[in-house]
Amino acid sequence: MEKTMEKIVALAKARGFVYPGSEIYGGLANTWDYGNLGVELKNNVKKAWWQKFVQESPYNVGVDCAILMNPQTWVASGHLGGFSDPLMDCKECHERFRADKLIEDFCEENGIAIEGSVDAWSQEEMKNFIEEHNVPCPTCGKHNFTDIRQFNLMFKTFQGVTEDAKNTVYLRPETAQGIFVNFKNVQRTSRKKIPFGIGQIGKSFRNEITPGNFTFRTREFEQMELEFFCEPGTDMEWFQYWRGFCRDWLLSLGIKEDEMRLRDHSPEELCFYSKGTTDIEFLFPFGWGELWGIADRTDYDLTQHANTSGEDMTYFDDEKKEKYIPYVIEPSLGADRVVLAFLCAAYDEEELEGGDVRTVLHFHPALAPVKIGVLPLSKKLNEGAEKIYAELSKKYNCEFDDRGNIGKRYRRQDEIGTPFCVTYDFDSETDGCVTVRFRDSMEQERVAIKDLDAYFADKFTF
Amino acid sequence: MEKTMEKIVALAKARGFVYPGSEIYGGLANTWDYGNLGVELKNNVKKAWWQKFVQESPYNVGVDCAILMNPQTWVASGHLGGFSDPLMDCKECHERFRADKLIEDFCEENGIAIEGSVDAWSQEEMKNFIEEHNVPCPTCGKHNFTDIRQFNLMFKTFQGVTEDAKNTVYLRPETAQGIFVNFKNVQRTSRKKIPFGIGQIGKSFRNEITPGNFTFRTREFEQMELEFFCEPGTDMEWFQYWRGFCRDWLLSLGIKEDEMRLRDHSPEELCFYSKGTTDIEFLFPFGWGELWGIADRTDYDLTQHANTSGEDMTYFDDEKKEKYIPYVIEPSLGADRVVLAFLCAAYDEEELEGGDVRTVLHFHPALAPVKIGVLPLSKKLNEGAEKIYAELSKKYNCEFDDRGNIGKRYRRQDEIGTPFCVTYDFDSETDGCVTVRFRDSMEQERVAIKDLDAYFADKFTF
Repeated sequence: MEKTMEKIVALAKARGFVYPGSEIYGGLANTWDYGNLGVELKNNVKKAWWQKFVQESPYNVGVDCAILMNPQTWVASGHLGGFSDPLMDCKECHERFRADKLIEDFCEENGIAIEGSVDAWSQEEMKNFIEEHNVPCPTCGKHNFTDIRQFNLMFKTFQGVTEDAKNTVYLRPETAQGIFVNFKNVQRTSRKKIPFGIGQIGKSFRNEITPGNFTFRTREFEQMELEFFCEPGTDMEWFQYWRGFCRDWLLSLGIKEDEMRLRDHSPEELCFYSKGTTDIEFLFPFGWGELWGIADRTDYDLTQHANTSGEDMTYFDDEKKEKYIPYVIEPSLGADRVVLAFLCAAYDEEELEGGDVRTVLHFHPALAPVKIGVLPLSKKLNEGAEKIYAELSKKYNCEFDDRGNIGKRYRRQDEIGTPFCVTYDFDSETDGCVTVRFRDSMEQERVAIKDLDAYFADKFTF
Repeated sequence: MEKTMEKIVALAKARGFVYPGSEIYGGLANTWDYGNLGVELKNNVKKAWWQKFVQESPYNVGVDCAILMNPQTWVASGHLGGFSDPLMDCKECHERFRADKLIEDFCEENGIAIEGSVDAWSQEEMKNFIEEHNVPCPTCGKHNFTDIRQFNLMFKTFQGVTEDAKNTVYLRPETAQGIFVNFKNVQRTSRKKIPFGIGQIGKSFRNEITPGNFTFRTREFEQMELEFFCEPGTDMEWFQYWRGFCRDWLLSLGIKEDEMRLRDHSPEELCFYSKGTTDIEFLFPFGWGELWGIADRTDYDLTQHANTSGEDMTYFDDEKKEKYIPYVIEPSLGADRVVLAFLCAAYDEEELEGGDVRTVLHFHPALAPVKIGVLPLSKKLNEGAEKIYAELSKKYNCEFDDRGNIGKRYRRQDEIGTPFCVTYDFDSETDGCVTVRFRDSMEQERVAIKDLDAYFADKFTF
């Protein structure tokens, strides 16, 4: 079985996981809408993250901050000054390129070895390289580029009546800063002591020049971020702790060892303020892609905000009678990316006895958008089946399906990843039992209707 | 007890429900961040809405659409042409006003009766009224206004590298349109038949000139919207159904009859395409405010999108062998508003025996941000209490508190609305029992630790 993006994108659209955004108007470059199943899958992923990173954690609490923030935030974080891509245009064909990507692609094609990542080069270095190596326009082959200029990736808008600098605000490019500016507020109201963390789930926006790979890289995206505050000197220990914690979270939800890798940044690749960074990557059908960045950000962010705002960002350690600016470990996960990873990981085509092939999504039961399909064997049995559906729907997202033969209905539930089907048949009317059918093994067992509540009680826990 | 906004805003900030946005930078006009308790409260409200409007509903499914949409969407919906406020400036003091509000305030002050709502007047009518009545500037008292001009309330931004008309996109001013443009997609993938509905929870943005009243009216806000599609002719029946359903949802979560009212729009007040609209209003400390608008929008929206996109928006009724554009009933609820309503409704100050006053938030258990406070009577008992906390945290958001005398800890849990406290005392070590204390009655009962799971199993259901 070849697992391709084409198949997964097609299934996603056909079954209501993901549609192209604004589709009836020809779309809007790389926006996507989650459909009736996609919204459930994504909500389940967010719930599983919140459960382990906030609810069950003795260390962490959550917040939900505004997308629009005071622009001084982006001065402090460095986004206003430095969050930009180096762009250049071909004067001949008017195509636009990221200079760093242009160089990287050129080197790969021509077998030129380069050290580290090109995006760490200065504008001057990129320009010189392009001239020295006579890099051509990939579209028209000519050699007539404009100068490189920096393009800020933040979406800009205006709050209030006039469109001037005074009213300019930005859509946040990351959820992290909402946590940093509220560090003292949350510490005060939660009465947490160091070490403790603050988690947030929410939308961020980056005006990427080259989004792509379905929902992997989009301009509007959702993040699940934790900022974990600890005493300087204990940071590498906590870095290791969260690195392992994130890895285990993915494994426990069904991602396999061989489709995941942890890539530690080399010293040259590290941001100047970071003591260590690990990317957790997933093997998508289009190649390895980053899901999670876990970084030791030292006291960089809180110090920046202290300096810019003039507010005290120190923490007073009651026991040691010491004051310090905490170090921060940041595990930052892309919600849309990890949803896509779960979709890709779950996808399978299985050859059955007799040669038939079934498409099946092997979601972890906690992530499955539909938990239980309720299927009356015949429409004559709808009344009894509807009662079961109404009862189970109080606890689980269920689907009622009375259309077509039972085999086709099982296949359909397999294809959307429903772990259990409950079939109500003619015997059910007299023996008070139903057949429970399992997605993965396709085995069936007979269960009394009155026991269904207890039967399912521990089936979806995570 | 006087329930004032001042008290509620102060409690919200002190206890971690809501902080001013970007506070360390002096804020950003009327943005707010949900703190460690606020995020849990808001998530619980969203969950309770999703549970009744999507999960348990045999009619409805959900979606989660992008905030950035193709601008043609706003041509079709009328937001690009008509979603604006009539603004005018005082040339003397440079204050800016909404002309309709200026007139309404003037009439109220001077006892002038006007028919209907001023925002339905034409620009000309407003201008004439101001001249005829010699309406003064409320700030400086002079009579020297600019002309009225229309100010579009959509936030504008640019996607891509150049800031020109071609790249202009808008932050959605409502979640409804994401549902309408996906009507056919969702109908196809969910295989629902009319009548059915599509629900969505998400952020919207409106560049309001005069936001205010804490989180009641903000520029960035979250909506919980249902668009319910039905056969023309059955629409008034479904309008009544959802009107009652919304009301019952509020009542079942603890809003009282006397702090809620249903206000039916008069024929003059109705939008031209609406056959009926009801606002559900809540009595905030600052007066009655709209929470929920329930409207019969006829086939207006789908017809507009069909005309603008050229796509077929009809539904084919299998049984009747008829094709039609469905009518739409829209119950649209502001998430931030209803969270504020639940906070206001829950707030109480009770005089206790002996004259002490306790502040208590009487949240419905399903909405309470912390479900169970776990309190060891002495720090010596932390080990046993921590085990209970770890176990209960797997299912509920719990708080562990070992600081201060037990009476003060109960008061603190009352003040954040925790419905149950579990106190682990010296007897617990030998008898294997804990004391469960109730927030509302302040009564206590003794429960075996091994029975706690079963004890709490039905305490938070909704």
